[in-house]
Amino acid sequence: MSSARDKTNDRIAALQSMLCVGLDSDPAKIPAVFMTMDRPVLEFNRAVISATRDHAVAYKVNTAFYESRGMSGMRDLEGTLELLPPECLSIADAKRADIGNTSRQYAKAFFEAWPFDSITVAPYMGFDSLEPFFEYEEKLVFVLCLTSNPGSNDFEEQHLQDGRPLYRAVLEKVSHWQRNGNAGIVVGATKPGLLQDLRHEAPDLFFLIPGVGAQGGSMQHAVEQGADSARRSAVVNVSRALIFPEGEFRSVEQFEAAVGKEARDLHDSMKSML
Amino acid sequence: MSSARDKTNDRIAALQSMLCVGLDSDPAKIPAVFMTMDRPVLEFNRAVISATRDHAVAYKVNTAFYESRGMSGMRDLEGTLELLPPECLSIADAKRADIGNTSRQYAKAFFEAWPFDSITVAPYMGFDSLEPFFEYEEKLVFVLCLTSNPGSNDFEEQHLQDGRPLYRAVLEKVSHWQRNGNAGIVVGATKPGLLQDLRHEAPDLFFLIPGVGAQGGSMQHAVEQGADSARRSAVVNVSRALIFPEGEFRSVEQFEAAVGKEARDLHDSMKSML
Repeated sequence: MSSARDKTNDRIAALQSMLCVGLDSDPAKIPAVFMTMDRPVLEFNRAVISATRDHAVAYKVNTAFYESRGMSGMRDLEGTLELLPPECLSIADAKRADIGNTSRQYAKAFFEAWPFDSITVAPYMGFDSLEPFFEYEEKLVFVLCLTSNPGSNDFEEQHLQDGRPLYRAVLEKVSHWQRNGNAGIVVGATKPGLLQDLRHEAPDLFFLIPGVGAQGGSMQHAVEQGADSARRSAVVNVSRALIFPEGEFRSVEQFEAAVGKEARDLHDSMKSML
Repeated sequence: MSSARDKTNDRIAALQSMLCVGLDSDPAKIPAVFMTMDRPVLEFNRAVISATRDHAVAYKVNTAFYESRGMSGMRDLEGTLELLPPECLSIADAKRADIGNTSRQYAKAFFEAWPFDSITVAPYMGFDSLEPFFEYEEKLVFVLCLTSNPGSNDFEEQHLQDGRPLYRAVLEKVSHWQRNGNAGIVVGATKPGLLQDLRHEAPDLFFLIPGVGAQGGSMQHAVEQGADSARRSAVVNVSRALIFPEGEFRSVEQFEAAVGKEARDLHDSMKSML
């Protein structure tokens, strides 16, 4: 049993939602109403979580946006983790991996020191760089596969001698490396046809699908092509388009209302597909 | 002019050393004499730095060993950076990279919030995931190329359709992506013949060479095959074999003497090759 996976699939079924809220909480974009508070990013995250928790099945904390502010950012990362609803999947979007003894420390960081349910990891260094994460059988480990950015063409989509692009070799190996169904992959919503192919090839993996919204991917493709045959086992991340709604906000309540409306709209559209 | 690169090459020439001290400061391995102190890891690092600073040209801080202890680890990372001798290259061994807007935040984290001279980054996501690091022209950006671990065979050494292994495609692209000579690559000392080939193909890149010591690579191969034609532009990292010498230490002074002897021996052997 993979508890993080089961918890998430239970919530997907109960809510009829695959919404993952991406907390890419860039201080330069946070509404002015938060900026006079003691901890603007933490209070902003609290408002986003409050406005979205009835619609979300997962929250993704992008470590870069916290590390970029040094120690005060790390305090906000820790504080944000404590605010996440326990019924939702918490994802440390950390893209870590290194040689085995070092990956063991990264796993300890994001599964113990900061007890997230799941993490994103990078495959370049191979099996022993990912094994320490997979050893946590109750967690979910999302390996980068085919990402949503233009640079995915540089290496990920390069063809190997057997004709497969690199990201398919990653997909296949990850399927063998998982323990107890605790592996996932990151596949961008900006590649709709390929998303369907990957789901076909990997019916049992959990999918984390970024790229909807600011990056241009379609929610409909993401949900319809990313879900498994039981219409579960995928979460679709929305960050900028959800947490930074347009407009001026005179109060936290106004901001929460705007984010809540976005989240409800996303949830409604997912309901109609699931 | 790339100031981090020039600074390091000046010191390589002055000291006749390529020694990079890897601060993989695992609390489980730190001598007992430090463990009763207020901040054992920071005091351990202070002792290692004090014992090695006449022999080292670079210090590599492995972020995993700090993140694994949560906030107190991050405080030690920040404190350690402040202890590093300004004449030495400081390397954030962070293996980061993500889509462009996120990599920009990682670059800000390790070049501004924590002002390291250089960082290690992972190539899987391609150009736009690395560009924000290269934009800091005065820094050094070490891209993972051919690493020292067994898993390097899973993807790095897989052959592309044009016959080249993936790591050669990485090498070639990185050479084009650098700005002002600010690119480096990570090549493991555990692959001596390949190290020589890569130096031949990339005469202008800076090399960070891990894998000597606990991982089994030879210092002689690393120095002789990693250096450029001017006998510069490479640093050879030693972590466990240097900072955790065998024996019992009753005082910080005894520990420093043991580490200092290791560092001097490594320096002497490098002098004879340079």
